[in-house]
Amino acid sequence: MTTTQRIDLNADLGESYGPWQMGDDAAMLALVSSANVACGGHAGDPDTMAATLAAAKARGVTIGAHPGYPDREGFGRRVIPMAPDQIARMVACQIGSLLGAAALAGVRVAYVKPHGALANLAADNADVARAIARAVRAVSGDLAVLAISGTALEPAADAAGLAVFSEIFADRAYLPDGRLQPRSQAGAVIDDPGMAAARLLRFLDSGRMEVAGGGSIPLAAHSICVHGDSPHAVAMASRIRGTLTAAGIALAPFAA
Amino acid sequence: MTTTQRIDLNADLGESYGPWQMGDDAAMLALVSSANVACGGHAGDPDTMAATLAAAKARGVTIGAHPGYPDREGFGRRVIPMAPDQIARMVACQIGSLLGAAALAGVRVAYVKPHGALANLAADNADVARAIARAVRAVSGDLAVLAISGTALEPAADAAGLAVFSEIFADRAYLPDGRLQPRSQAGAVIDDPGMAAARLLRFLDSGRMEVAGGGSIPLAAHSICVHGDSPHAVAMASRIRGTLTAAGIALAPFAA
Amino acid sequence: MTTTQRIDLNADLGESYGPWQMGDDAAMLALVSSANVACGGHAGDPDTMAATLAAAKARGVTIGAHPGYPDREGFGRRVIPMAPDQIARMVACQIGSLLGAAALAGVRVAYVKPHGALANLAADNADVARAIARAVRAVSGDLAVLAISGTALEPAADAAGLAVFSEIFADRAYLPDGRLQPRSQAGAVIDDPGMAAARLLRFLDSGRMEVAGGGSIPLAAHSICVHGDSPHAVAMASRIRGTLTAAGIALAPFAA
Amino acid sequence: MTTTQRIDLNADLGESYGPWQMGDDAAMLALVSSANVACGGHAGDPDTMAATLAAAKARGVTIGAHPGYPDREGFGRRVIPMAPDQIARMVACQIGSLLGAAALAGVRVAYVKPHGALANLAADNADVARAIARAVRAVSGDLAVLAISGTALEPAADAAGLAVFSEIFADRAYLPDGRLQPRSQAGAVIDDPGMAAARLLRFLDSGRMEVAGGGSIPLAAHSICVHGDSPHAVAMASRIRGTLTAAGIALAPFAA
Repeated sequence: MTTTQRIDLNADLGESYGPWQMGDDAAMLALVSSANVACGGHAGDPDTMAATLAAAKARGVTIGAHPGYPDREGFGRRVIPMAPDQIARMVACQIGSLLGAAALAGVRVAYVKPHGALANLAADNADVARAIARAVRAVSGDLAVLAISGTALEPAADAAGLAVFSEIFADRAYLPDGRLQPRSQAGAVIDDPGMAAARLLRFLDSGRMEVAGGGSIPLAAHSICVHGDSPHAVAMASRIRGTLTAAGIALAPFAA
Repeated sequence: MTTTQRIDLNADLGESYGPWQMGDDAAMLALVSSANVACGGHAGDPDTMAATLAAAKARGVTIGAHPGYPDREGFGRRVIPMAPDQIARMVACQIGSLLGAAALAGVRVAYVKPHGALANLAADNADVARAIARAVRAVSGDLAVLAISGTALEPAADAAGLAVFSEIFADRAYLPDGRLQPRSQAGAVIDDPGMAAARLLRFLDSGRMEVAGGGSIPLAAHSICVHGDSPHAVAMASRIRGTLTAAGIALAPFAA
Repeated sequence: MTTTQRIDLNADLGESYGPWQMGDDAAMLALVSSANVACGGHAGDPDTMAATLAAAKARGVTIGAHPGYPDREGFGRRVIPMAPDQIARMVACQIGSLLGAAALAGVRVAYVKPHGALANLAADNADVARAIARAVRAVSGDLAVLAISGTALEPAADAAGLAVFSEIFADRAYLPDGRLQPRSQAGAVIDDPGMAAARLLRFLDSGRMEVAGGGSIPLAAHSICVHGDSPHAVAMASRIRGTLTAAGIALAPFAA
Repeated sequence: MTTTQRIDLNADLGESYGPWQMGDDAAMLALVSSANVACGGHAGDPDTMAATLAAAKARGVTIGAHPGYPDREGFGRRVIPMAPDQIARMVACQIGSLLGAAALAGVRVAYVKPHGALANLAADNADVARAIARAVRAVSGDLAVLAISGTALEPAADAAGLAVFSEIFADRAYLPDGRLQPRSQAGAVIDDPGMAAARLLRFLDSGRMEVAGGGSIPLAAHSICVHGDSPHAVAMASRIRGTLTAAGIALAPFAA
């Protein structure tokens, strides 16, 4: 990655529900190159999907399906006990639902990125990773998978014959083994946009991510994830875009 | 229709939800030629869809998507106030969801038939009919539409460039204007399977449906709908299949 | 009402859901004297109820139950077709749910005010009004009812033996027959806090509400409703509180 | 327990939802002395609660609230990750909801019994047990708690100042430590009504429950639980009632 001249910037969007708004999608769509759009599971509904897809289309932002546990009260951040086959069915239905909305809106869905607790489980659990990859592949072999860098979803999606891309987190500290530092530990979250942007720039220059305790590790990244639902989301995304473009790094979707 | 040698028999199936069963899908799938499968709106969920699709595939039954108002407690039988554009989005997402499940199950979805209050509204309201047709067409021009014979959904689907097929009801009395006799009136529902089957046979012989008050009207029909969730559903479907096949009329899907 | 030295100021609060926030409850609770707390129907959930009840208790704000159609996507603003008996059951369960949360929080629920489409229906439809009154009375005869001034819910609640209080709207224009001017008409909504506060002051001085087209009508009011979910809610409530208290009118709950 | 001349027979009822029926509540209400009524969490809705409460009242069956995880698709059988305080809020709201329905129906709710995964967690986890006991106590000190015999919910409810009663399972095999044999093991479930009834009779005669591998253990029991949603529920309950009453043991509610 030392010669990276371009990288994607992605955020979870379309996470409103009925009358309730989540985040500032309009502002974020002016900053990111890829939008992970909720599919009516942990968030979203047909009207929200339609509005998000139309706004992304207007901004030229690439669209991904963002399936999550069907647990609105928990926002997809709780593990709902489900067998891998059940997860595959749920993911297939959620992707299908967004594809239906996208067909009506006249836009293309380019990739799939699991959400929240489902993404975390798919990072560690090969059975779950394979179930998700199987569901994506069944729905369409043209869908790419956006996985957390270095996790079980990457080989699972690759084995399913899908294009696989990797993401790193703009605001999370890494451990020497490549995992994220747990949020419960001090320093796990980088709140300062300037620090986050500078770290990303060093990573993109060197291909090595700094880790907690000192030192660095190699990490693959086709995309940088910024959280769309945090209070500082817009400031963070804006600073990262500014810092990277000023350094000559283009922000562009990984999936055409 | 006087020379009809074949007709389709359809029923609403896959209307279980989570732990709750609705009807006897296994028995019905041995009798019908087309299954309208709930899409997670008024009924159904990813596991129920998957089980229903697999069972229909095993029986060689043709599959249709059966979208309905997202109102489980009301089973899609209540009109939820929604603008036509909202209905289009909802229908697109529900069809998409079933298509996702079908892709995973390796089966094809051949048509779309609206459910309950949505179907009744689409029968009368041209804006709603066009919204549904628009959603179907956007998702796939290969999907046919199964409409209540003589209603607004037929021209709407036709205008959208979709193949349109018409259904009549096995157990409902008709009025001279081609509408169904309201359930609140005596004689509106034909509970006796033998009477229902005999009436259908006369209709298929003559192309004319008997109406309340005497006389008959011409009615187009590519399919006969039997209700899958009534206590007598299996007896009704079984008697109709027996009577029609004994008379040399093949029961076969309208959509290949 | 010409000698009114005090009046209540109420707002719909606790209308967040899971991860989604609605309005600025903390700011509103510093301004209102009564809080209509969502009961998990159109909005709210056990955690939201608990947080709202605790915050209201800390501010000394009187608490009312705010039942609405169980339609989160529509935020209780759509009429869901239900028989009056079904509405009574729904309302009883929703009040009960808030009473459960209130018992755990150690606070008292003093009154009931229906929400949105349910409130509008109860204003016009005596059967629905009686169903709601019957449900409230069954749950507790100590609960008051807060009704839209001059509507069917007032006599229904009175006939059920409940204390009845009437509210007017801070930001809505009235018609000569005492009804609200439909939102579709120009001038129906008073966006300017200063104008709204001045109108209320004139009403409280005279006991007569100005109506569209000129002139005024007598109107009973124990409470002024400010909308908690509008962008200007806090500014509106703040201005009204300032204007009224400056004029020597105390803002105090109608229900002790 | 060796001198027991009476015992309660309880079942989970009111677990239908909207259009979907669960079990044969009418038949079960003729056999049991206590009904655990779902509260709209894992199952039930206002209409189902009302119908169940009215039917129980007509049969003179004692009513308990039966709160469960708000997870209809999982029927409350999956652990939804929630902090104990969240569980307390959920339980308080669910009990409150049933109390609201009961007030409208003119019946009394006498006790609380947690459902499914929540009951199992409360059996093992003292924090969860205390959270539930705290919620019950806050709603009403007149509510008893029905706990699985020998589990953490018993001391928790007792410490909260609540009356506590213990239940055993009619159709489940016990281990020497008093726990239930896991369903995954052979012999864990007793399907034969005659065998189940005979075992219960021996238990009631001796106060000792036979355990897997031979031998027996002392076990406290004020109530016998029969599962209301199994295919054999009515046959099982009927046989137990017949066998016990023939032996002179009265079936009567533990809570007056």
